Amino acid sequence: MSRYHVLLMPGEGIGTEIVAEGERVLRAIAERYKIDVDISQHLVGEEQFKQSGRYLSVETETLCDELKTNPNAGILFGAVADEPIGILRKHYDLFTNLRPIRTFSAAADVSPLCSVREREIDLYIVRELVSGIYYGQMRHGSDAAGRWAGQELYYHETEVRRIVQQALQVAQQRRKRLHFVHKGNVIKDVFQIWLDVLHAEARRFPQVECHDILVDNMAMQMVLKPQYFDVLLACNTFGDILSDLGAGIVGSIGLLPSASLNAHGFGLFESVGGTAPDIAGQQKANPISTILSVAMLCRHTFGHEMAAQAIENAVNIALSQCRTADLAAEGYETVSTAGMGDRVLSAL
Amino acid sequence: MSRYHVLLMPGEGIGTEIVAEGERVLRAIAERYKIDVDISQHLVGEEQFKQSGRYLSVETETLCDELKTNPNAGILFGAVADEPIGILRKHYDLFTNLRPIRTFSAAADVSPLCSVREREIDLYIVRELVSGIYYGQMRHGSDAAGRWAGQELYYHETEVRRIVQQALQVAQQRRKRLHFVHKGNVIKDVFQIWLDVLHAEARRFPQVECHDILVDNMAMQMVLKPQYFDVLLACNTFGDILSDLGAGIVGSIGLLPSASLNAHGFGLFESVGGTAPDIAGQQKANPISTILSVAMLCRHTFGHEMAAQAIENAVNIALSQCRTADLAAEGYETVSTAGMGDRVLSAL
Ligand SMILES: CC(C)[C@H](C(=O)O)[C@@H](O)C(=O)O
Ligand SMILES: CC(C)[C@H](C(=O)O)[C@@H](O)C(=O)O
Repeated sequence: MSRYHVLLMPGEGIGTEIVAEGERVLRAIAERYKIDVDISQHLVGEEQFKQSGRYLSVETETLCDELKTNPNAGILFGAVADEPIGILRKHYDLFTNLRPIRTFSAAADVSPLCSVREREIDLYIVRELVSGIYYGQMRHGSDAAGRWAGQELYYHETEVRRIVQQALQVAQQRRKRLHFVHKGNVIKDVFQIWLDVLHAEARRFPQVECHDILVDNMAMQMVLKPQYFDVLLACNTFGDILSDLGAGIVGSIGLLPSASLNAHGFGLFESVGGTAPDIAGQQKANPISTILSVAMLCRHTFGHEMAAQAIENAVNIALSQCRTADLAAEGYETVSTAGMGDRVLSAL
Repeated sequence: MSRYHVLLMPGEGIGTEIVAEGERVLRAIAERYKIDVDISQHLVGEEQFKQSGRYLSVETETLCDELKTNPNAGILFGAVADEPIGILRKHYDLFTNLRPIRTFSAAADVSPLCSVREREIDLYIVRELVSGIYYGQMRHGSDAAGRWAGQELYYHETEVRRIVQQALQVAQQRRKRLHFVHKGNVIKDVFQIWLDVLHAEARRFPQVECHDILVDNMAMQMVLKPQYFDVLLACNTFGDILSDLGAGIVGSIGLLPSASLNAHGFGLFESVGGTAPDIAGQQKANPISTILSVAMLCRHTFGHEMAAQAIENAVNIALSQCRTADLAAEGYETVSTAGMGDRVLSAL
């Protein structure tokens, strides 16, 4: 039987509160399904980075470097300021970012979209996570008229091919409809590579219906007919924007989990939301994003679909009974971060 | 009394159909308010561009070049493929793109957002239109592993300052709440210039409440609480995406007008939507986006607020009676493009 490793990195802000609930769910599920998992705690954060110039301690980094080619290992991540997460993603080459955007039958009312009352949303964003403009070359300077600055959107075919392949595989396992989101009418060379690679790779997936769509149109369609779409493939920036837009259409960023994987299957699992300093330390944060990230960890790291679904079902049940502050609604008890954790645990 | 000039450029696809209705409204309003306007017809389009390498005929270009410093002149534009519109915007330096995103009291039902039933949306996007990555330096090449390509997001402080000033002025005349949309956490140098310029220029507008917000968060907030926002200032790309997202939250891109102005006040007025080849020539397109663009033309080119409001009120009345195919709804007569034009005209 395989031995699994989960590194808990709560980080800062609401990170510690939501990862605490994720950890409880993880331990309960490991016990229930007899999953042999080694769980360890690690510090990560902006403060630490500022003080030591390291985003992880030497010990943690050594451990991660050991595990980074191990598909049976993953990080359950909370939240940190912007700098360290970008560095971690790049360092471990976590190029495949998976962001399911779905509504739960018990919580259709939390979506601001009227149409969701009738039909659930079940989208899946596949975002390229370690290249593109966020990691692009910067230059800056000034002239008599003032300052100027530039940053380059850059992709190499190899970076494109691997994420395209991931997206096709995901689509193959889902409803087999893939939309590649781009802006090739004005960013021609870069997106032509994506279009060509998609075209070539798609031949190996004859069952997958492949489309391409301009990002502006996609943003509109996600609001007008989200139920039509299945898998969305996007570059780093467009995937970033569309996944938060996804948080809008399902009702709260506190509901959205994510998985970021490298070529070996080593992964980092985290809420799509950030540190939320305004509500940190108040037990107001919604832990569902982290609890669903644990479900993704079960699926991708443990290869345990049944455990993943058990968590997802428990979340649905919990949402039918109570809501955290972000989703407070008449007819539902408002609970704390830990209160929501309790409900999910008892529904497990 | 001033003499005004309006150049009609219907272009292709649904462009000819929607501009025909815009023209009827323009002529009616000019007659009603005794506006002395010279209206001329001009060809523009991809076909023409492909054949002659010119996006406008020599005559049209000469006329435009004459008028481009005239604040009393404007183009009422239909739609063309992507290439020519980008060139026109750049050639006439139409850097200020104004995109109002609003619901109409008579048509709250067309928005997919449940919240709109209670409170109308009245957002105003100020988008930089002639710089940024869409006009950035491109490079491409290949190595042993494959092809690569890059395109640069670039802004000079002078390009930033003029659009920031426009946005502050717009906010000053509206509800005085400005949100600058950016991604300065990962595109640092470029957006630092924007933030610094905004900070400096905002001192001259002490009544305007200035905020900055990350683009991903903005996309989410636009869906979750669109009524909270007033003016959004964005670079070319983010403004592009957010305005189509705006089309989503109000229910149809067929409702959204725009004005693109240069430093002299010369302007191009057009629907936010494109040529829509799938419905072209069928009298199915919604002409309201163009009719509202005529209202913007009245406001910006004629300086005639009363005429602008008369058109906007007429649109509201027409929407209370009938809808084009994009917004077909029970209880409302479905009308053709010209049918909607008729209703607006009779409500004028
Ligand atoms: C914190 C930030 C750098 C990050 C990103 O843009 O990638 C976040 O928005 C996300 O989506 O994970
Ligand atoms: C046609 C295209 C180049 C254009 C743009 O992206 O600027 C359009 O989407 C718009 O928003 O006016």
